Formats: sequence, structure tokens, C-alpha cells
Amino acid sequence: MHIELNRSGTSVKLFKQIAGTIADRIRSGLLAPGTRLPSVRQLSASLAVSQVTVSRAYAELESGNLITCSQGKGCFVAATAPTSPAKEEADQTWQMTLVDYLPRAQLWRNFNHQLHIRYQFHLAALHPSLLPVQDIVDNAYKHLSDNPELMAHYGAFEGDLELRAQFAGILQQKGIRVSADQVLITSGAQQGIDLVARTFVGPGDVVYVEAPTYTGAIDVFTSRGAKIIMVPMDEQGMKLDMLTRLCDQHPPKLIYTNPTFHNPTGLNMSLARRKQLLELAASYHCLIVEDDPFSDLYFESPPPPPIKSFDQGGHVVYIKSFSKILAPGCRIACMAAQGSVLSRLIAAKSTADLGSPLLTQKALLPFMTKQWSKHVSNLRMLLSRRLQMALSVLAAHAPRRISWVAPKGGLNLWIRLPDDTDLGRLSREADKRGISFLPGEVCYAGGTGTKEIRVSYSFAGEEELQEGLKLLCELLDEDQRPLPPEQMHVL
Amino acid sequence: MHIELNRSGTSVKLFKQIAGTIADRIRSGLLAPGTRLPSVRQLSASLAVSQVTVSRAYAELESGNLITCSQGKGCFVAATAPTSPAKEEADQTWQMTLVDYLPRAQLWRNFNHQLHIRYQFHLAALHPSLLPVQDIVDNAYKHLSDNPELMAHYGAFEGDLELRAQFAGILQQKGIRVSADQVLITSGAQQGIDLVARTFVGPGDVVYVEAPTYTGAIDVFTSRGAKIIMVPMDEQGMKLDMLTRLCDQHPPKLIYTNPTFHNPTGLNMSLARRKQLLELAASYHCLIVEDDPFSDLYFESPPPPPIKSFDQGGHVVYIKSFSKILAPGCRIACMAAQGSVLSRLIAAKSTADLGSPLLTQKALLPFMTKQWSKHVSNLRMLLSRRLQMALSVLAAHAPRRISWVAPKGGLNLWIRLPDDTDLGRLSREADKRGISFLPGEVCYAGGTGTKEIRVSYSFAGEEELQEGLKLLCELLDEDQRPLPPEQMHVL
Repeated sequence: MHIELNRSGTSVKLFKQIAGTIADRIRSGLLAPGTRLPSVRQLSASLAVSQVTVSRAYAELESGNLITCSQGKGCFVAATAPTSPAKEEADQTWQMTLVDYLPRAQLWRNFNHQLHIRYQFHLAALHPSLLPVQDIVDNAYKHLSDNPELMAHYGAFEGDLELRAQFAGILQQKGIRVSADQVLITSGAQQGIDLVARTFVGPGDVVYVEAPTYTGAIDVFTSRGAKIIMVPMDEQGMKLDMLTRLCDQHPPKLIYTNPTFHNPTGLNMSLARRKQLLELAASYHCLIVEDDPFSDLYFESPPPPPIKSFDQGGHVVYIKSFSKILAPGCRIACMAAQGSVLSRLIAAKSTADLGSPLLTQKALLPFMTKQWSKHVSNLRMLLSRRLQMALSVLAAHAPRRISWVAPKGGLNLWIRLPDDTDLGRLSREADKRGISFLPGEVCYAGGTGTKEIRVSYSFAGEEELQEGLKLLCELLDEDQRPLPPEQMHVL
Repeated sequence: MHIELNRSGTSVKLFKQIAGTIADRIRSGLLAPGTRLPSVRQLSASLAVSQVTVSRAYAELESGNLITCSQGKGCFVAATAPTSPAKEEADQTWQMTLVDYLPRAQLWRNFNHQLHIRYQFHLAALHPSLLPVQDIVDNAYKHLSDNPELMAHYGAFEGDLELRAQFAGILQQKGIRVSADQVLITSGAQQGIDLVARTFVGPGDVVYVEAPTYTGAIDVFTSRGAKIIMVPMDEQGMKLDMLTRLCDQHPPKLIYTNPTFHNPTGLNMSLARRKQLLELAASYHCLIVEDDPFSDLYFESPPPPPIKSFDQGGHVVYIKSFSKILAPGCRIACMAAQGSVLSRLIAAKSTADLGSPLLTQKALLPFMTKQWSKHVSNLRMLLSRRLQMALSVLAAHAPRRISWVAPKGGLNLWIRLPDDTDLGRLSREADKRGISFLPGEVCYAGGTGTKEIRVSYSFAGEEELQEGLKLLCELLDEDQRPLPPEQMHVL
């Protein structure tokens, strides 16, 4: 087991770091229930820390019910931990000794396969009826049957030039001065984040993110051994006074932000802060990764322009998902960058997968050329209606101690629950009733004291949205009431 | 600039390691001509090595004409180095101070865009006429227009179950006992190699590869900071006696092999060695990555069964490209693994890109189901004919001091040139005449003393293949003759 320890420049104690990393692996299902952990002696030797430190880490994990230890037998991952889908067989037990560099996989844990779920609120994606899939299939076929030889080619590592030109045009409308050759096409925004991280983030590098943030970004930066520092937000986005103070002590390598209809909170970073953040990055010679899945999906006035639109010095890598609101089956996003940062990202893309498939790029091209604007303006209307539905259900049925802020765009509602909520129990009960949501804790690196959930109002059907939200409110209401005596745990 | 130094367990001197890493970056075009290198003082401080060590590294680079140094001004990347496509602008010069973790990108350097080339022999891919692209387009459209909602979904991280079942079936025919849920779909074999590396290979981990090997694999393992050790081959493949001795000193984390119609040499690892290699991996508790792009493309008898077919303990991660010989525009490969190795690879796939596009998977499905066997048996015939053509041209026109072994399958001819060949000059001259090949040196980590080129006989048209090979032979012949006096360099 590889554990990246930060021995200086952090106030987090070593035993906490060890416990935190092992907890991440267990919660991600990467250490299956029943797995035996290395002995205190082994782990202390391999990490070059004292046995007392490892013992304290194990005690911490045991008190959190993640592992069980017994005298003489050792420590084992608790039976209640999430199970991994691949069962280990007897002659494969050697595999557990195989060190890996994959400490967290909350995407995998929280987003794969939830077909048994009727009310799917965990996924920030669009209901099929909101997607122009038939148009895309027809357009794609027309284009490809006229040019079948396109399928015979690998295409350029940086992506198809025609599609890059289309994307550049859309970015220009947002005020981003970018040409087609400054655009790199990726297999979804997730890959964009990953490419930046694999190129520019290494062990111990400091990465700032909003608290909370997109869980997939935490997975990526954790896999690079980064030191992730979370910066609290207020209604104007990331608190820059706090970030500035933190940067004094821990100079940033990279700042990951989602300034527009922020995932998960829905908040917008103010115009002033966007400019300030860029100045901060310039003064520290660091990169900003601006992840922008939602800026087209505003319900009132358009949001402030992207940070990238003010960028003169090539500090911002701007990532924009397209397939998310067109055809997720295509997995196409783009990133805009300049200079050697761009060259290095293209080189990283070649190492990662030789370039995105030409098929998915060519499939989107005709639609992008002709129907993009009409599609997004239509989406704004339909999503706004859904949000109103969701808000009405909440207003009528949510218990009193629960709060939320109506977002002005995007796909998510961030709901704050009372601090005494048992989120684990809530998730299990919701699952029984066919309701899914994203537990807020996965949006924090290293845990949080607050209790939140993210509910997406865009993926379920309209009826399911209303029914499911009502059921969820009932469940939240039950959770607020004391348990009947026979269900209480005897301590 | 991040340079991974190995201070123990290797006989390679530090200055050689530093020079080698910088040379890799320059040859990959990651440091553009004219770029100023850090001063001796700066680099010695940041790497914690003596100034003498850095000076020796720079002297080594200068003697190889990769950089030019002048008293008082510092060292600069030489003007003859490959140029990177993205030009740096004045206000982006800060970017060169941005440390990255991408020391090598020979794929990017050697395989992107070569549209001006008439005789393309550098690419181990198929001529469009050999690919069933029209069938695939038609099948895909039929399937997708009946099920357009498929485009609305992300699909599972591990890939589409129907396609995984098809792939598992094909693997079973090769003797690999694998079920659909032990198959993971990736965006090409390159991504498969990358997923294994990002999951299991970290700084200093020992990775064994054949000498020579696939350049894309070297890119990947280098990006992870691995210690790559190249094992010579004979006509039975990787020399296992040598590997065994090396493993004693440097225990392996992973062995990357391409045992069947090896890329680039075309050699087959013998059955006995396949079994021995697996025993070696079991005794060291390490992984084998078996990359198998070509086993279907045999011209005489079928090659020995894959190493994976003997694997009981889950030591082998087997990677098989499919889109390469169907429709490269789809970028689809699969990997087979077991137990927690498989779980961890799926988790890594989720972090990398949330899973391959459903579109490319569903596009291949109907063809895979109905026409795969017929297609590959047809391909064997057509490729065998091309190989015979290529061999006839070589037999008739190749100069005497040049040698090659006729491969029994695959897409490549590995040609050995005299040791005094100037490969740089040869490449430039070939480029002028519209001929491309892969310079053998990119198939070695850390250089080679021998002179080879890889010529693929499958991508050019049949006429171009013969014409171009004849031209190449003429060029090789010229290269053997002394230069006329007016072209000789005065030393």
C-alpha cells in the first residue's frame, strides 16, 4: 500500500494522514471487506514512521468503524465497508501485496450503475428527452456514410480541426480569445482535469479547490499525490482573502475552480473575484484550471464571463464539456490553453490514449455547426421549469431544519441538513425506496463536519422528479424524529 | 523541470541520468529550440546535486548537439531540435518555469500528422481498403437509429456489457479463461498500458521491457518515473536467463511484453519462455502486461497461445486492441485481468475518463458479433500478399550491408542498417522524398548503439508500398557511399 506522507509544510499529523488515506481506500471500495491490513510492524517499516504512529492510525480507523482489530490476529477491513465488484480468488491473494498509486475512487464508488434506482438524483446529467440524440445519430450517419474513410483514420492527437474550430467559435462568444489550434479535444471534462494533473501535478504539489468541489477532481489530484487544500466559499464563490493568506504559507501549483454555477453548490464567483484570482495566479506563476460545464445553462441573466476571457499570460486552462448536454455517449469536451502549457497537454494526451476517437468527434460536428445555439436556449427554458418544480416540492414538503439556495443555473440543488443527520442511514433508507443522491462528504477531500446532499433535478423524468423529491422529504422528516424505542441501539 | 533521479540501485551516473532526461525532452519537442535551460547553479540546487554533475550533464548534451552553451549567456536548446507546434508568446515565458511530469513524448513527436508524406511506412496501421469501415458505419447506424437513447447514457466505467461479452468470447478462443466481467474496455491499447502504469507503477519502480519495444510504452512508464530496464531478445523472444539475473538485483514491479509478432521486430516468444516468464512473475509477485495487437494476423501457422492463457494467479494483464484492425476512428481495445488488480484498473479508468464512449463501443458491436472471424481470416491473406511484395522489393533492391528477418505475422519489418549509418540524415532525406519510417532509436529507453528502422507494410497502398520501398532502398544505397567532396563537412 503506497501512502503519500507529507512530513513538512502541513499541520496534519502523520497518523491522521495515514488513517485518512486508508479510510479513502476503504470508502472507495479499493480495500474489500475482510482484507487484512499490513501489521503495525510492516507498515511502520515501509512508511518509515514509528509503530506508535501506525497504531494510532489504526485506532482512529477502528473508532470510525472502518476496520476491526483483534489481539494477535491483526486488523481487517470491516464487513460494512462497500464491496468491490471483482471477487478475489484464493490464488490471487498475492495481489493485495501489490502496491498501487490509486488512493481514492469516489467517482467509481458513487456513479457507476444504479439501474435499480427509480428516482435518480445523484447524476448531474440530462434526462434523455432533453438531449437531441436522434438528430445527432441522423446527422452523424449522413456525414459518415458520405465519408466512411474517416473511420479508417486515427485523427490528430489534439483532435479534429473542424470540431476544434467550432469549439473555438463558441468559446469566442464567451469572450475567450482562442483560435482552433489553441483548443485540445478530450474524452470528456474528466479527462481534461486528469491531463492537467498528470502533466503538472506531482507528489506534494499544492492544489487549491473550493470547499466543496467536484468529487472527480479530488480523485484525480489525490492520485497524483497532491496536497489538496480546500478553500471555503461564500455567496460570491471561493473566499479569496482566505486563499491569499493560505498561498503565503503554501504556494500554489494549481488552483482548480468551477466558478460558474459551481458544482455542487450552484454559486457564481463574482466578476471582481474572477479577476482577483487571475492576478493571484499570475503573481504565483501557477495555473488555474477553470472547469465550466454549466455556463450555458443560466435561468435569469447570463453569468459573469469566464476567468479565461481575462487571461493574457496563459495562466488559465479552460475546460468545457460538450457531450454532457448533447450526447453523453460521445464523451467530448475541449480545453483551451496557450504556449508550452498547451504543447505539454497535447503530448500528455498522446501518452494517455493517442487522441480521442474520430468517430465521436465527427458525430457531433454537424449538430455543433448547425443546432448548438438553438439547443442550449431551449434547454435553459426546460431546465428552469424543472428547477421550479423541484423548488415547489421542497417548499411544500421539506422539514423545517433543512435549507437550500435556489441556483440561477446548472443542474444541481445543494441541500444542507441538520448537523445531527446520520447520512449513512439516510443513504441506505433512500436506496431502499429507490432514491439516489450524492452524499456531500464525497465533495470534500479529507472529510467535513457539515451534512449536505446534492440533488440533481435534470436527470429524472418530470414525474419522477416530483414524486421522488416528495419521498425524499418524507425520509428527511423521519430522520429528524427520534427513533422508536425498539430500533434504538443499546450502547 | 522535474527530473526523477535514481540515487541508488543503479549504475547509471547522475550526470548521465540528468542528460538523458533533458535529451528525451528535447527530442520529444517538449523543450523548444532556443529555450534557455536553468543555470548550472539553479539546477544543482533544485536537484540537490553538485554543480560539477550538472556541468557534466550539459557538456554531454552539448557534445550531442542538443544544446549550445556560451560563457556568460547560459545554455540553450539547439536550433536543430524539433519544434513544438504551439508557439510561446512574450507574456507566456513564465510557463517555462512550470515544473512538469512529462519527460518523454515520442509518440507525439513521431506519429502525429504526416499528411505531406506519400509513402507512409512509419505507422503500424492498415490501409483504409483493408478496413471494413462502410460495413461498420452501416451496422452502427442501424443499431443506433433503433436505439437512439443509447447516446443519452454514459455507460458503465468498465465498458458495455454486450461488447465485453463479445471480447471475452474471442479471448476464450485464444485459450484465455475469462468472463465478460473480467474484461475492461479502454480507448485503445495505449490507454490500457497507461491505466496499468498509473495504477501500479510509481517513481523508482522497476519495469522490464524488451529491447527494442513499443515507443508508446516507454513514454508511459517514463511519465510514471519508473526505472525502465531493457532486456535483449533472441529469435525466441526476450532473453529470460538475462532477465532472471537482472531480477535478482532489481526486483520487478512489472514486466511489459509483446510476445506475439513483437513490435517492432516481428519475433515470437517461444512457448517455453512464455511459461517461464509467468513462473518468474509468480515468484516475484509482480505483474506481466501482455500487449497483443497482432496475434490474429499470422501468415503461416497460428502463434503460441498467449501467456494469459496459462495464468492461474491473476499475474497477467492482457491487452488486446480491436479498433486497430477494424476502424481506428473508434479507438477500442480491451484488457483482461482478475481480482483486485481488475477492480483497481476499473477505478483508475473512472478517474481517467469516466469510461470509454458508448458510441464507439456500440458502433463496433454488430460487426464484432457477426463478421469478426471472416474479417481477420481475410486480412491474413491480404497482409501476407503485401509482405511478399515488400520482401521481393527488398531482395531485389536493398544494398548489401542491410539485413532483416521476414516476420511470420503482424504489420512490421525491422531492418538493420550498418552501424555507421547517419539515421538523422537518412530521416531528413527520406522526408524530402515523401517517405516515412520509424527510426529504431525511439524503441529504446535511453538510446542504443545499433541502427535500425521499422517499416510497416500495411498502411500504404500496394503501389506506394512497392514504389516507396524501392526509393528507400536507393536512399539506403546512397547513404552507404561516401559523400561527394563538396558535401563533406570540414572538421
